[in-house]
Amino acid sequence: MKYEYDKVWEFTNEVFLKMGCPANDAKLASDVLVSADMRGIDSHGVARLIGYVRLWDADRINPTPSIKIVHETPSTAVVDGDAGLGLVVAPKAMEIAIDKANAVGTGWVSVKNSNHYGIAGYHAMMALEHDMIGMSMTNASPLVSPTFSTERMLGTNPIAVAIPADKQPPFVADFATTTAANGKLEILQRKGEDAPVGWIQDEQGLPSTNPEELKKGGALLPLGGDRVHSSHKGYCLGSIVDIFSAVLSGANFGPWAPPFVSFLPMPKNPVGEGLGHFLGAMRIDGFRPADEFKENMDVWIERFRSAKTTSEAPKVLIPGDPEREMEVERKVTGIPINDKVVIDLKEVAKRFELSF
Amino acid sequence: MKYEYDKVWEFTNEVFLKMGCPANDAKLASDVLVSADMRGIDSHGVARLIGYVRLWDADRINPTPSIKIVHETPSTAVVDGDAGLGLVVAPKAMEIAIDKANAVGTGWVSVKNSNHYGIAGYHAMMALEHDMIGMSMTNASPLVSPTFSTERMLGTNPIAVAIPADKQPPFVADFATTTAANGKLEILQRKGEDAPVGWIQDEQGLPSTNPEELKKGGALLPLGGDRVHSSHKGYCLGSIVDIFSAVLSGANFGPWAPPFVSFLPMPKNPVGEGLGHFLGAMRIDGFRPADEFKENMDVWIERFRSAKTTSEAPKVLIPGDPEREMEVERKVTGIPINDKVVIDLKEVAKRFELSF
Repeated sequence: MKYEYDKVWEFTNEVFLKMGCPANDAKLASDVLVSADMRGIDSHGVARLIGYVRLWDADRINPTPSIKIVHETPSTAVVDGDAGLGLVVAPKAMEIAIDKANAVGTGWVSVKNSNHYGIAGYHAMMALEHDMIGMSMTNASPLVSPTFSTERMLGTNPIAVAIPADKQPPFVADFATTTAANGKLEILQRKGEDAPVGWIQDEQGLPSTNPEELKKGGALLPLGGDRVHSSHKGYCLGSIVDIFSAVLSGANFGPWAPPFVSFLPMPKNPVGEGLGHFLGAMRIDGFRPADEFKENMDVWIERFRSAKTTSEAPKVLIPGDPEREMEVERKVTGIPINDKVVIDLKEVAKRFELSF
Repeated sequence: MKYEYDKVWEFTNEVFLKMGCPANDAKLASDVLVSADMRGIDSHGVARLIGYVRLWDADRINPTPSIKIVHETPSTAVVDGDAGLGLVVAPKAMEIAIDKANAVGTGWVSVKNSNHYGIAGYHAMMALEHDMIGMSMTNASPLVSPTFSTERMLGTNPIAVAIPADKQPPFVADFATTTAANGKLEILQRKGEDAPVGWIQDEQGLPSTNPEELKKGGALLPLGGDRVHSSHKGYCLGSIVDIFSAVLSGANFGPWAPPFVSFLPMPKNPVGEGLGHFLGAMRIDGFRPADEFKENMDVWIERFRSAKTTSEAPKVLIPGDPEREMEVERKVTGIPINDKVVIDLKEVAKRFELSF
């Protein structure tokens, strides 16, 4: 079933209002959440709405947080999210990064005491209209084993980087630091298909193709998949995201990161507060005139897009192309929501005496 | 054959002096270059010395550069390397980043008009003694094809991040954004062994196991290896390094990056000046008290190092462990230099009337 953007957004907004979010926060959270559906990252959109509601029911989300800077220099800050929705905390922290970049060239904000923040790309893209490069990363529920380990020590810890161009659309990279994000496993589970070797391992750390392996003690693999294909580099990337987001801010890091699902208990002996994010903004004209840079980005994009292709594809993609094309399409056709998610949304509707 | 550090360093220093470098620059360049050998990254150490000499012979390296800031804000700068050795330009740019971090919390320097800068990790690690996180990246000779392309558009574009701890040694990640760095292919070439699938493709973009494939129009593959294993993420990472290092500074980007080997012609219609780097420093106490952070890093490192292992390895490694252990070993046993490199170094010795 496909649903119009406005209908999905309105419902999401009503739910956040029912949770007690102030109107502006509910609007912001809805913008962030439904942007995932529009960009084709269905695992991070309204499919997660019921998860936020359950976290709120479990008293793990504060709908009226006092989000504040607890430490800062002209180009840095740590923000305490006061257990608010990451969907609200992260864009507010990104605004602080942008303000600092306006003042001294760059701004870097590490966030503690937050929750799941939706798609990393949304926050990074906030920088674009200011002629800034935006960066965004977050730690997440531990599902990923380091190279040589059988323990789940890291989340899928995504990195997003948004870079403005002139006539070309912006360069927007937004990716999990694992071979495959969890959302891809969920798709295989629904279809009853096997996963490629290199995505997951079983409880003993052996390669597995069973997309249900995580339920049996298995783990997602860092980008690279195995040591021969440099999974240690994916492990480095996931670790850097974890440290920038959580150790730098004082959030829970590594295996202590709080699970997104409310039915899993919080890790014992927490090492920090909540989940962590890291947001950055760099003013282009801190380096060179923005017009010059953006013209060069057009040259970069045009040259890469016109690179000779293999027989696999008609053209070389620029990071952000697939999501932007999806957004154009879904504005017309609506957002497809799978049956299982529709059932969840109807449950949420019932919970709050709304209709969906 | 194994050579003592001092002997290798002295010879390298003599060579840079013969090229006309001022004494301080020759010393700095030797420190950077031979640190690669000590850390076990043999492809980036004295094995490259003859390459720098040939670039100098081809008038592509200026031994007495006037390295200067051409644009800046309190937290940012663009540095013009004046065609100097990257081994000298990069650490000087990193010092500027550290100065800016001291002043306003972080410092970010994009460099143009430079050359090969040795191992990325050296420059990032300069931040550690200042209780700062150091970052370093560089673009490089185009050898890597984007996902779906047969053209070599990017270098192996490494990223290094160095993070201080307290009682534990620092976290030091330093890796090419490809599945395998070029140095690994050179090792296979010498041994006459095949490469694993996922490291390289042939001229048509098909998987190849021939380590000589690059000589026949093939290419290295971005981290991930193929689309199914998310090579688009390695392509994103390599692109981000290219844009931060070269588009932000005004250096040559993408396929226009100058080749390191002097026998290849410079690309026509350059889009910038020389090669580019990007260096960053973040003061820990811009975020939270450095002691607190470093104690937490100890917890992070101890927890990850003691994670349960697979049958593949006796322990989980922390980024930087293998290089640090190698450095300890080579201080005692000396630096192994292979016969082909010894022949090159003897040629360099003859060229400058030195002995090796």
